[in-house]
Amino acid sequence: MRQWPTGGIAFGGDYNPEQWPRDTWDEDMDLMRRAGVTFVSLGIFSWSWLEPSKGEYTYDWLDEIMDLLHANGIAVDLATANATPPPWFSAAHPDILPVDRDGHRLWPGSRQAWCPSSPTYRDAAHALTQRLADRYHDHPALALWHVSNEFACHNLPCYCDTCAGHFRRWLERRYGSLERLNEAWATAFWSQRYGDWEEVLPPRRSTTFNNPTHELDFRRFGSDTLLDFFLDEKRILNDASPGVPVTTNFMTLSGFRHLDYHDWAPHQDIVSTDHYIVATLPDPHAELAFHGDLTRGLAGGAPWLLMEHSTSAVQWQAVNPAKAPDQTLRDSLAHVARGADTVGYFQWRQSRGGSEKFHSAMVPHAGPDSDRFREVCDLGSVLGRMGEVLGSRIEADVAILFDYENGWALERDCLPSTDVDHPEMAHAIHRHLRRRGVQADVVHPDTDLSHYSVIVAPTLYLTSEGMAERLTAATESGSHVLVTWFSGIADRDDHVILGGYPGAYRDLLGIRVEEFFPLLRTDTVALSTGGIGRRWSEDARLTGADALWTYAGGPLSGRPAATRHALGEGVAWYLGTLPEDDDLGQFLDRILDEAGVEPVLDPPSGVEVTRRSSTSGSWLFLLNHGDTDHDVRVPPGHDLVSDSRVGSTLHLAAGAVAVVRED
Amino acid sequence: MRQWPTGGIAFGGDYNPEQWPRDTWDEDMDLMRRAGVTFVSLGIFSWSWLEPSKGEYTYDWLDEIMDLLHANGIAVDLATANATPPPWFSAAHPDILPVDRDGHRLWPGSRQAWCPSSPTYRDAAHALTQRLADRYHDHPALALWHVSNEFACHNLPCYCDTCAGHFRRWLERRYGSLERLNEAWATAFWSQRYGDWEEVLPPRRSTTFNNPTHELDFRRFGSDTLLDFFLDEKRILNDASPGVPVTTNFMTLSGFRHLDYHDWAPHQDIVSTDHYIVATLPDPHAELAFHGDLTRGLAGGAPWLLMEHSTSAVQWQAVNPAKAPDQTLRDSLAHVARGADTVGYFQWRQSRGGSEKFHSAMVPHAGPDSDRFREVCDLGSVLGRMGEVLGSRIEADVAILFDYENGWALERDCLPSTDVDHPEMAHAIHRHLRRRGVQADVVHPDTDLSHYSVIVAPTLYLTSEGMAERLTAATESGSHVLVTWFSGIADRDDHVILGGYPGAYRDLLGIRVEEFFPLLRTDTVALSTGGIGRRWSEDARLTGADALWTYAGGPLSGRPAATRHALGEGVAWYLGTLPEDDDLGQFLDRILDEAGVEPVLDPPSGVEVTRRSSTSGSWLFLLNHGDTDHDVRVPPGHDLVSDSRVGSTLHLAAGAVAVVRED
Amino acid sequence: MRQWPTGGIAFGGDYNPEQWPRDTWDEDMDLMRRAGVTFVSLGIFSWSWLEPSKGEYTYDWLDEIMDLLHANGIAVDLATANATPPPWFSAAHPDILPVDRDGHRLWPGSRQAWCPSSPTYRDAAHALTQRLADRYHDHPALALWHVSNEFACHNLPCYCDTCAGHFRRWLERRYGSLERLNEAWATAFWSQRYGDWEEVLPPRRSTTFNNPTHELDFRRFGSDTLLDFFLDEKRILNDASPGVPVTTNFMTLSGFRHLDYHDWAPHQDIVSTDHYIVATLPDPHAELAFHGDLTRGLAGGAPWLLMEHSTSAVQWQAVNPAKAPDQTLRDSLAHVARGADTVGYFQWRQSRGGSEKFHSAMVPHAGPDSDRFREVCDLGSVLGRMGEVLGSRIEADVAILFDYENGWALERDCLPSTDVDHPEMAHAIHRHLRRRGVQADVVHPDTDLSHYSVIVAPTLYLTSEGMAERLTAATESGSHVLVTWFSGIADRDDHVILGGYPGAYRDLLGIRVEEFFPLLRTDTVALSTGGIGRRWSEDARLTGADALWTYAGGPLSGRPAATRHALGEGVAWYLGTLPEDDDLGQFLDRILDEAGVEPVLDPPSGVEVTRRSSTSGSWLFLLNHGDTDHDVRVPPGHDLVSDSRVGSTLHLAAGAVAVVRED
Repeated sequence: MRQWPTGGIAFGGDYNPEQWPRDTWDEDMDLMRRAGVTFVSLGIFSWSWLEPSKGEYTYDWLDEIMDLLHANGIAVDLATANATPPPWFSAAHPDILPVDRDGHRLWPGSRQAWCPSSPTYRDAAHALTQRLADRYHDHPALALWHVSNEFACHNLPCYCDTCAGHFRRWLERRYGSLERLNEAWATAFWSQRYGDWEEVLPPRRSTTFNNPTHELDFRRFGSDTLLDFFLDEKRILNDASPGVPVTTNFMTLSGFRHLDYHDWAPHQDIVSTDHYIVATLPDPHAELAFHGDLTRGLAGGAPWLLMEHSTSAVQWQAVNPAKAPDQTLRDSLAHVARGADTVGYFQWRQSRGGSEKFHSAMVPHAGPDSDRFREVCDLGSVLGRMGEVLGSRIEADVAILFDYENGWALERDCLPSTDVDHPEMAHAIHRHLRRRGVQADVVHPDTDLSHYSVIVAPTLYLTSEGMAERLTAATESGSHVLVTWFSGIADRDDHVILGGYPGAYRDLLGIRVEEFFPLLRTDTVALSTGGIGRRWSEDARLTGADALWTYAGGPLSGRPAATRHALGEGVAWYLGTLPEDDDLGQFLDRILDEAGVEPVLDPPSGVEVTRRSSTSGSWLFLLNHGDTDHDVRVPPGHDLVSDSRVGSTLHLAAGAVAVVRED
Repeated sequence: MRQWPTGGIAFGGDYNPEQWPRDTWDEDMDLMRRAGVTFVSLGIFSWSWLEPSKGEYTYDWLDEIMDLLHANGIAVDLATANATPPPWFSAAHPDILPVDRDGHRLWPGSRQAWCPSSPTYRDAAHALTQRLADRYHDHPALALWHVSNEFACHNLPCYCDTCAGHFRRWLERRYGSLERLNEAWATAFWSQRYGDWEEVLPPRRSTTFNNPTHELDFRRFGSDTLLDFFLDEKRILNDASPGVPVTTNFMTLSGFRHLDYHDWAPHQDIVSTDHYIVATLPDPHAELAFHGDLTRGLAGGAPWLLMEHSTSAVQWQAVNPAKAPDQTLRDSLAHVARGADTVGYFQWRQSRGGSEKFHSAMVPHAGPDSDRFREVCDLGSVLGRMGEVLGSRIEADVAILFDYENGWALERDCLPSTDVDHPEMAHAIHRHLRRRGVQADVVHPDTDLSHYSVIVAPTLYLTSEGMAERLTAATESGSHVLVTWFSGIADRDDHVILGGYPGAYRDLLGIRVEEFFPLLRTDTVALSTGGIGRRWSEDARLTGADALWTYAGGPLSGRPAATRHALGEGVAWYLGTLPEDDDLGQFLDRILDEAGVEPVLDPPSGVEVTRRSSTSGSWLFLLNHGDTDHDVRVPPGHDLVSDSRVGSTLHLAAGAVAVVRED
Repeated sequence: MRQWPTGGIAFGGDYNPEQWPRDTWDEDMDLMRRAGVTFVSLGIFSWSWLEPSKGEYTYDWLDEIMDLLHANGIAVDLATANATPPPWFSAAHPDILPVDRDGHRLWPGSRQAWCPSSPTYRDAAHALTQRLADRYHDHPALALWHVSNEFACHNLPCYCDTCAGHFRRWLERRYGSLERLNEAWATAFWSQRYGDWEEVLPPRRSTTFNNPTHELDFRRFGSDTLLDFFLDEKRILNDASPGVPVTTNFMTLSGFRHLDYHDWAPHQDIVSTDHYIVATLPDPHAELAFHGDLTRGLAGGAPWLLMEHSTSAVQWQAVNPAKAPDQTLRDSLAHVARGADTVGYFQWRQSRGGSEKFHSAMVPHAGPDSDRFREVCDLGSVLGRMGEVLGSRIEADVAILFDYENGWALERDCLPSTDVDHPEMAHAIHRHLRRRGVQADVVHPDTDLSHYSVIVAPTLYLTSEGMAERLTAATESGSHVLVTWFSGIADRDDHVILGGYPGAYRDLLGIRVEEFFPLLRTDTVALSTGGIGRRWSEDARLTGADALWTYAGGPLSGRPAATRHALGEGVAWYLGTLPEDDDLGQFLDRILDEAGVEPVLDPPSGVEVTRRSSTSGSWLFLLNHGDTDHDVRVPPGHDLVSDSRVGSTLHLAAGAVAVVRED
């Protein structure tokens, strides 16, 4: 596989030259060189420009820009350009438009308005990909293929009749027989028993709650359907240009949960993702860090490609705050600190018109004579000095288990509480580890966990075959396993494991819960720590574990709220409520302490720290997200950001970043 | 009519054996005997199991379970099994699916997805009922027929074309002529005059507000349509098994207002209902008590059947709190205290899969080795000792008038305030009476009111023919009549009675209101009591009454807010705003005092008290919903709960219940 | 043109006699005379009464009421009666019903349910107008034609296929070529390039954001389509009765933004409007005053007709507070104070049934024996004394620029902040001027601005050809121009003007903004004034202006927040955030002071003041909206309200109004 794109941290972004007159292109080349840009993503929404009407193709502009980029030493991540079909296509084939839960077809006029199952769309999309592959497979600028764009953003779930048919066939493959489906979906209740495959529909809007396993399977189906489309695209591209890697940009960020990226990642030649900061989150940089670790997990620990993020504001939130001065650089390096080897933006030049014109860009509306563009140039210089980091990895003793399916199962009604969320709990624990300077991998539960000292199962409601055995074996071999409330409750069919909760982990944890006592949003429960719990409490009994905390009031007063169960060489820990940060922190600290997990270093408040290392060295990333300067004790080395020597103390100004190559 | 089901308080719940393997059935029988179960409801959602494909019937499992239950001495409430048609039926007849206000057909996949008017559905449902009636009419386990399930839950209103046709015919019957309809609906405005019956549609989503009388009639029509279906079912069942009583489970609880149960109740052989606690209500047990009294009112004062409630949490709210330890028993007896002679649960065994798997049950996920199941067994024992209570009644001097139609008229837009609600006001007054230990009947305005000392018309916006005369006659004969704001405003066509508000009751009350001054949600008005009023104020003038309270600020300063009008032997009282609890309590106390109404006893705070009595004795129910123990002075007798002697003082622990058979 | 309707302030309201029995009509005439009514609007929703079935006409009742009104000296504003088609019409022609954004047709049953483009509706509506024109064009009672009713209330936007076709033709006229449309809509992005006019659709619900220029054009199209309908109606009426003026009632009030009244106003023989107070607004009387000034602006400074307002409560809000005693009169005169020469109500007699029965009226439900009707009679007397005011005008030194298109552009997503609103900013500034007693005109940006001392561009995001040049010329000639944040950003195609914000006004203001820093709803920014800013801040640099305020914290600390740029004889002022009232007031006061703008007089708190004047005199309006009495120093004269002499001090009781004819 060809190196992507050259021997350094790749730097660039989406480039949409078709939005601009020809003379702007020349200025773009100048400015890209000034900024240190080494790659661009091209053609993502260009279908209507490449094929302005049926069978009429206009590649000349793309030829020209490819040549121009190559002449300027800029590698191209070339999109398959089929992310959005042109108006003429939707007008000719309205059946390709997605259908909502009410059974009503959406309209074109926005983007990505296509049904994932539509053969009409698929055939046309692949034909375009084939044409692009034929034409550009050996263009010297071509360094990477970019399939479609942000799969499932806006067009999943689709409830149309075509999807209904595909869903039935998917179910036949999954279950083999209707009897097995009826059993899995528990259709004995509410008179839902299916007698013929043709009776099965997507879970469209009905009179009240749809069957939960039906809903869960429909989400699985949606992810699989798009993956199938991606694989067809990949096949075309691989055939045409065997040496050019193929990727599609994931969206590993809170709020996007449509695809099971753990199924997708193995099929990416390079895992790439988009990440945007959501201003209203309580701690946006903690969220960024979590998703960096998750993306690295998807890449199997290998470096990954940050395909899109923003230099400053986005335009799709209700209010879109700008980034502070110096934040452009810090946010980018926060991704690199978690394993990114490519720094890409949406987009190169801020649009004048259209829906994304108020999305920031590398060249803002104000033009190159602007602080923001100057910061982009600074970033380009810094990244230029960081080539040595390329390929280095992060070592972690802690694994946080993350499972998209599990999120789907909890993202619905008919639960003890709709306030229960798997990612939220995973984030809460990750946030603390980050604050402590402890590195964690965010990985799928089926990953090999044998080398982790601490394994966290954060509200992992669904359990899979062998999961309990594997966690038990890990504990017995000396690992510390932390399970939080509402984990191990149901199997992959979303059937409750009977006999007392958490069915899958009762023996591992040495507890048995008779009943859940979820808390109203406005309620809390007192804990023996003096603190409070939120969201959840439960009627747990000790069957081997020791109580660390108990409830200190309410109907469960005296019952265990957190427990510890020594098992073999290790310990199984349990948390039955969501404590405040202080209590959670102390609880986690105790586990880290018993497990002997060490931080990268003990960071001052507001400072994020990670270490990347390889056979050729190690690099300490320090990012000061806070408002105050800090002097941090570090190993001596060379700071690649300021390009200067660092002794044993690093002065890290508010907002500043250092990347110290350790001696 | 056969006794339902045997000579004691019946105890049991919904039983869905088709969800479980055969060997679980034997364990069920054992556990039912342990718990003292005397009845189960069977087959409610079994259509797809009884007729898995068109014309293929599988009764063997039902035969077997009926026999098994009978062998174990458990009576069966057998459902007509048509509450939800199977997937094959909806697939073959999509026209049976309900249509929403937008005119869009819903989809199957949930439950009770059938149009109440559909002849296709009706014919098939009746055919199934006929088959069940033919097969089981003389089965020795059969003790009660259970028609459909929670009528109107999810499938009303339906706006389909079939309903449109039925609605037109219903209107023809109601109005006789289009001229009369045009007058009733006031179609002279907004150019709504109908020239042909075929022009009339359901009040589907239009450009802005629909005609209010049109909307009101459509709700009347919906209730009548389902009642018509019920009556057809009942006819089949009565014909097949003349001695077996027939019922359908009502939903007398806040939030369910689709049916006018005052029309339905006379057609029930035994009035039965479901009741679930809503965690977010300000005082859920006061709500439970209100609906107990309402259900008793529907039963004409006779005992009634609590078909469903829950041992602990439900699963359909956003957050579903569990019941406290000992609350299972207390909540059940709270229904018995209001006249229930049957205690039924949804459901016997908690499901493993499907939409209701997190709804609690008599046998929880944890199994019989659980506190919850042990409490269920305790309850079975207590109820076993309470057979003597069977058939006893409650005597009340206070009547609270309740009218579903009136609730419909206020549950819409184009009112002085959408914050005005009939049930809310009825609840507020009932809550105070319960706190005082005063028994009240909740009855329809057309009930014979002659024997009540106090009659309350709580925001009874609609008035009927003769209503004012009857209240006036009652007052003149010595009753105390309390009317609250926005009562007696409109006739049954929702036409305002002119000349000053409250049109129907001006003379009775001795006041005349020129204009309403509703209050914004954030606003209050000062009262001469020193307290405040919410929601409402009005420009009232005295025309015979005396002012008890006046407004003490704002544009109405000095105007009467509460009045007293002596009339004949009695007094007509009026309340023109919603006061805080303290003021409302003092106001109601004065009325009770003048009317000479005595409480059952003066209960400590948090303790609920009622008395049931019959020719053979009387039973005092004391329920401590609070967190503190109380010593209550009671008449001597025998406590059926603890099965022990009670002297003049009863020690009632926090959470405890006593049922004292008075000496 | 005939005088409307006679030589004084016209007084009356909507009259719907078809809602009442014949004998009520005689009482109406008596009461109208008692109240001093001089006009009524007739027949607005009478189509179903005039043509109860296809081709069957019943004019006799209308003949009779026209004659009766004339006999009683009451002029008639006769409606074209086509505002709502009858049920038989919608039943026969369901294609006339509007279609929502989802592409789903609405239903009849409310009002004004017709597609603005429908040829079927248009033909029938014009035919009815023609018949009415033929029959009544020379009726002696006829004084004014009232076309339709509140155009666009409920039936805009309509997304149906007919509208789609008309929209395409409208676009062809606007753009001439598809190339120009593609450029204007920036379709190079998101693959939206159109290859054929037939591909263009209304901006129906798609997968995510629709193209913003597409949306903007669709709003322009909607306004133009209804205007086209109005002009057709007007032609019919003008042909039949050349001397009778034609109007349609606008809705110049917050919350109604569907029509660009600046396009409509030139086509009105008399500008008329409806205005209703919204109880939940922070300062409803300031809102009323703004819209009075706006309506006067639409009328080119001439007096206008207040077609509808309310004597007290409306019925369409969630809670509908009544007006205080004496507020009926004060609110009416508040409109006269801003230029109204006609005072009309909805409606004469409060309905008994239907959707508007709880909307107040001149004769309330309580009947004529009521304070509200007596106040209406008082108002009639006062207006009777005010004939001399007729035709007088208001002179203002301040112009506030207002542009419906600009409001449309900001009333959507994909902006830096969805909290940015043009009317809100215009209101904030107007509110302060009103408090200071300074008169302002609210006018379209393309109005001749040469005679204003102060010109305010309040968040005027869109700019038009020549706009910057005109404001610059005005400044250079001595005007003071105030521009607030997010003005001058985009051209009429909604394309950003590049090179630094605010693109259009950079040179005028002497600043350059590199980036916007919008604030979350919960956030504020500290200012050097000691106060705070909300909603917005931005990274501005001085390029000629002086900083008046700077940010005192956050990422922009030290950057200018408000600036002053002397240019020629005048000054260009800029405000980069939304300050609190105090700061805003001081900022505006400084501008007024430098510009030498004088108030009418310096009003006490809570007192509104305006002056109308003509060649025959001048009248000072003083309205005390507050709770306290005031003694106000005024020029001597005669108060037309109390009909008494005023010396140099006027005692103005709380709630009272004076109209002083100055000596």
